[in-house]
Amino acid sequence: METKRPTSPAAEEILGSYFPVLDHGFVSLVDYMGTDEDVERAARVSYGFGTRQVSKTRGLVRYLRRHRHTTPSEMVEFKFHCAMPMFVARQWIRHRTASVNELSARYSLMPLLFYMPGREQFELQSQSNNQGREGSAPEEVYREAVKRWEKLRVDAGDAYGWMLEEDVAREIARIDLPVSTYTQWYWKIDLHNLLHFLSLRVDSRAQWEIQQFAQIIAGMVKRVAPLSYEAWVDYELESRPMTRVERQIVSKLVEGSDEGLVSKGGGRVSAAEMKEAGLSKREIEEFVEKLEAPEHPDFELDTQTMCSADEMAAKMYEAVPNSFE
Amino acid sequence: METKRPTSPAAEEILGSYFPVLDHGFVSLVDYMGTDEDVERAARVSYGFGTRQVSKTRGLVRYLRRHRHTTPSEMVEFKFHCAMPMFVARQWIRHRTASVNELSARYSLMPLLFYMPGREQFELQSQSNNQGREGSAPEEVYREAVKRWEKLRVDAGDAYGWMLEEDVAREIARIDLPVSTYTQWYWKIDLHNLLHFLSLRVDSRAQWEIQQFAQIIAGMVKRVAPLSYEAWVDYELESRPMTRVERQIVSKLVEGSDEGLVSKGGGRVSAAEMKEAGLSKREIEEFVEKLEAPEHPDFELDTQTMCSADEMAAKMYEAVPNSFE
Amino acid sequence: METKRPTSPAAEEILGSYFPVLDHGFVSLVDYMGTDEDVERAARVSYGFGTRQVSKTRGLVRYLRRHRHTTPSEMVEFKFHCAMPMFVARQWIRHRTASVNELSARYSLMPLLFYMPGREQFELQSQSNNQGREGSAPEEVYREAVKRWEKLRVDAGDAYGWMLEEDVAREIARIDLPVSTYTQWYWKIDLHNLLHFLSLRVDSRAQWEIQQFAQIIAGMVKRVAPLSYEAWVDYELESRPMTRVERQIVSKLVEGSDEGLVSKGGGRVSAAEMKEAGLSKREIEEFVEKLEAPEHPDFELDTQTMCSADEMAAKMYEAVPNSFE
Amino acid sequence: METKRPTSPAAEEILGSYFPVLDHGFVSLVDYMGTDEDVERAARVSYGFGTRQVSKTRGLVRYLRRHRHTTPSEMVEFKFHCAMPMFVARQWIRHRTASVNELSARYSLMPLLFYMPGREQFELQSQSNNQGREGSAPEEVYREAVKRWEKLRVDAGDAYGWMLEEDVAREIARIDLPVSTYTQWYWKIDLHNLLHFLSLRVDSRAQWEIQQFAQIIAGMVKRVAPLSYEAWVDYELESRPMTRVERQIVSKLVEGSDEGLVSKGGGRVSAAEMKEAGLSKREIEEFVEKLEAPEHPDFELDTQTMCSADEMAAKMYEAVPNSFE
Repeated sequence: METKRPTSPAAEEILGSYFPVLDHGFVSLVDYMGTDEDVERAARVSYGFGTRQVSKTRGLVRYLRRHRHTTPSEMVEFKFHCAMPMFVARQWIRHRTASVNELSARYSLMPLLFYMPGREQFELQSQSNNQGREGSAPEEVYREAVKRWEKLRVDAGDAYGWMLEEDVAREIARIDLPVSTYTQWYWKIDLHNLLHFLSLRVDSRAQWEIQQFAQIIAGMVKRVAPLSYEAWVDYELESRPMTRVERQIVSKLVEGSDEGLVSKGGGRVSAAEMKEAGLSKREIEEFVEKLEAPEHPDFELDTQTMCSADEMAAKMYEAVPNSFE
Repeated sequence: METKRPTSPAAEEILGSYFPVLDHGFVSLVDYMGTDEDVERAARVSYGFGTRQVSKTRGLVRYLRRHRHTTPSEMVEFKFHCAMPMFVARQWIRHRTASVNELSARYSLMPLLFYMPGREQFELQSQSNNQGREGSAPEEVYREAVKRWEKLRVDAGDAYGWMLEEDVAREIARIDLPVSTYTQWYWKIDLHNLLHFLSLRVDSRAQWEIQQFAQIIAGMVKRVAPLSYEAWVDYELESRPMTRVERQIVSKLVEGSDEGLVSKGGGRVSAAEMKEAGLSKREIEEFVEKLEAPEHPDFELDTQTMCSADEMAAKMYEAVPNSFE
Repeated sequence: METKRPTSPAAEEILGSYFPVLDHGFVSLVDYMGTDEDVERAARVSYGFGTRQVSKTRGLVRYLRRHRHTTPSEMVEFKFHCAMPMFVARQWIRHRTASVNELSARYSLMPLLFYMPGREQFELQSQSNNQGREGSAPEEVYREAVKRWEKLRVDAGDAYGWMLEEDVAREIARIDLPVSTYTQWYWKIDLHNLLHFLSLRVDSRAQWEIQQFAQIIAGMVKRVAPLSYEAWVDYELESRPMTRVERQIVSKLVEGSDEGLVSKGGGRVSAAEMKEAGLSKREIEEFVEKLEAPEHPDFELDTQTMCSADEMAAKMYEAVPNSFE
Repeated sequence: METKRPTSPAAEEILGSYFPVLDHGFVSLVDYMGTDEDVERAARVSYGFGTRQVSKTRGLVRYLRRHRHTTPSEMVEFKFHCAMPMFVARQWIRHRTASVNELSARYSLMPLLFYMPGREQFELQSQSNNQGREGSAPEEVYREAVKRWEKLRVDAGDAYGWMLEEDVAREIARIDLPVSTYTQWYWKIDLHNLLHFLSLRVDSRAQWEIQQFAQIIAGMVKRVAPLSYEAWVDYELESRPMTRVERQIVSKLVEGSDEGLVSKGGGRVSAAEMKEAGLSKREIEEFVEKLEAPEHPDFELDTQTMCSADEMAAKMYEAVPNSFE
């Protein structure tokens, strides 16, 4: 189709294709509005669509992000079609500044697809992060867990299918499907709120499963608005807040001027001094980590994995119990 | 405690008490800000807390609601503590203009409480409403369903408890709990958005289970802001939109003037004529229903059922597997 | 440009063109995401972009709007560039579910363009609507008002220009510009929230000046999503709520069945009876009006009036004091 | 009044009192919901109102803020009555996650109060910050500006009063009031969004006039939720983001371990090297500033300045033209 709207060729390449995530999930970019140039146009409140120099756009986009002028990045919008386990959906939906249309289990029949954690993801309760996982669980525990999960899903799927056959209301028949069951939705969100979502969900403290979705989405942002993506990595994802007390401490170790920075000779602040200044043991560890050189993650999409809408639709319909629909 | 803040004695009576809903759920009003008088104060942008005549407040509150001036009712706020099955929570959370803090199954141990539909709620898929239920299912189907549910829950609970014993990460151990498992949250919302929630959720087209929660909450609104509650019943809950075509039709049957309304002699509009005017068969049925005299529902709370925070907390903790926490 | 995104040819015709509003204002549709088909796709959570039968889409779009299933219409998005007097901007900005980038008077120089009400809009304070106008003001009052406005604007513009020459901070220099001064912004909003805005702002109770903007925007919606537009006119704009008491009264005058509606012979409800049933004098008047046959407004754009971005930009720059920028 | 709701004695002391801001503005805390303990209760999803150890609450509140777990702080709500010049109101209203009821100039008569900048605030356009001010303007320019402003306000006030006498619609009569005219509103917002507002508006890059309002509001937050206030100062207000490149640079100058931090001997990164690493001239300046020891601002309220609602109301009514209302 022809359009006068701003268009991103790199986004058009993947538009409407489906990227698999986990064992039965997916993310597809199905529409977008605007690109980096539209962030600039909104910030300048300028007229018409004329071509800008990329270098000027980059400078402005980075300035805006550095100074938390976030409203211009609300001017770019994304629409995704996604399928994920319900426990992931329940974390995802907490981001309220988005539009969602989810498959209704009151109205539709649910595909009987369940998330099965891989061996590597089957870990123990973390000691350092009370809501995370770390350290592999024993092999036999994993095998037993898989056996139990498989049985539970057969039983839950059978009960669901049987109730549908008995014409029990769908909204009742589904109440014992496990939260590992895949659901799906359309999700529409602007660039500003999407980057906030990504900052929280590609983070290692997010549940591993939702990280996988966030990483694919980050790769899609890179294609629609590459300058905004780059600024987000530099100024948010790999940025760390230096708190009031941390700044006091660093000011004893480093000195700055127009000519550059120098480390103050013999500067030293002991853990005991940091504690006295108000930092907890946990905060001191976090502080030391912040001062290490950051990684530079990349979220480039692997287009080898993508498939068509028809293929994905066929796979889903196959998993619906019986041939009702 | 003493306070200079606006206070509602009827709300104070139930503040912090827990009202049971379904087999293991509850709603408790734990805080509120403002009353009907604060709706008026905001609408008038007036100074100080002085006492108003109730009759004037009532007139203004009704005027505002009739004319959809909704911003003043954002000035009253409610905070609830609620427990509900996850499938209800997933419907509830779709109302985005609220603040929520949910029990985290990544961090906490889940009480093993599951919703079991009663005999009367176990109905067949509705033929007229594609997402609802109607007509009792056979007794033996109900008995078989209960048997299957009971087994599924024992198995899912055992698997969950066993994984916790093996120190598997909680965020993994919970993935096969059914969506009938009870969760809980703090929920804070303003009066305007709460009344919108209630309009949708006390409605007979909402799933029966969420209606039970909405009815209790409606009773709580009645205690905090009785005039707003009354105006909502009159102008929203029991109001029906008369569409463009419906107004055309009614204007052929009824005539109005300063002195009142009269039915036009021999006025008659056949179903065929209505169809020609653009109404579908379904719309004609809905139109006929709108023209019937409305019910006048009441949502008075039954204070006999309420219990203390301590009692409710004890019941919940008892259902947590083992004595870990 | 080529795109795989859903495209509306009728919208492309006007995309990026500027429609004048009032004496110096404008509205331009600068981008859009999705069409009526995307409302359907989201409601069905369906795969791919395949062509639908228009008749099926129309039926679903109308069903959704009639039953207030509003989330699918959040899936269509609009972006506008608009210029309006500040007192209009202050009413407009109260719609919070939109993204806005406004020309900053701290950073930029303001074009010295002021709104001058025409003779026909110069009316007296309304007696029936405490916030509106009705009835022409005397000719000589209008002439005197114009004279005063012209002088005030020359003085305010001179003071502004003089302070800029003296290099006074722009954020201070602008503090005595009148609220009739034109400002401008980019405004991005989804279809659901836009239709709510339009319902309130094409209404005759809105200030006449903002109605002019809303009417142009309604014409733009008609080009992007014509079926949603039509459903909005039928089920919202020309719909009226029939309240609890009004339904009681109507049920005494009209009787419905499968075969149609008939007026009850000799049915009559006097104003006194309506008052007794709880309606105020004002409500009775409103009720009588609701029962009259509705109008059927149209918001077709007049494409003769539109001009290019360059023309509009030139006009604005010309009005900036001096040649600073 | 007696209440079972959580209550803050320090907030009760100032509740309903009016704090003057600028020449004719004010802020009054008129209601609040919750305190620091309610942030904790929501985070733990715990039952009942029992008293906590302050030390535990403090630790949790700080942990939550450090890790951007912001939802529990949405559980505390504030309501303010404020009066400010319209140009300040236009900046303020950009914060959308709040409820607002503003005095309507369509409905009400406006008090003729205008903001007059003091000598010290009358500064030149900033060279370093394109939207700010810096450096005193000449005395004679200030005197001339005051003269012009005074005349403009007399003329605008006269025109407004005259049109009201001629019974011109209020919504028209007010269109040439300057944006320095004071308006007022009720403003309700939760703690999370309020702290975000304060971070942006007590900042030296915000317009000086809105900073004055933000500082008073910060003092009110300190009384309702002192632990959240303290955590905000430490982790947000006086925190600075250390970006990806800045972290690379700092890691060459400072080394951390369990025992503390030491400056690396002879560590030196020149401005040229920083430029090569990707920092602009402006970013280098900002970086040097971040590494300086922070200030520790305080926003303690001066209760000497506060007055009663009646006094403030009298002052406002006096400024309304004539004695119409």
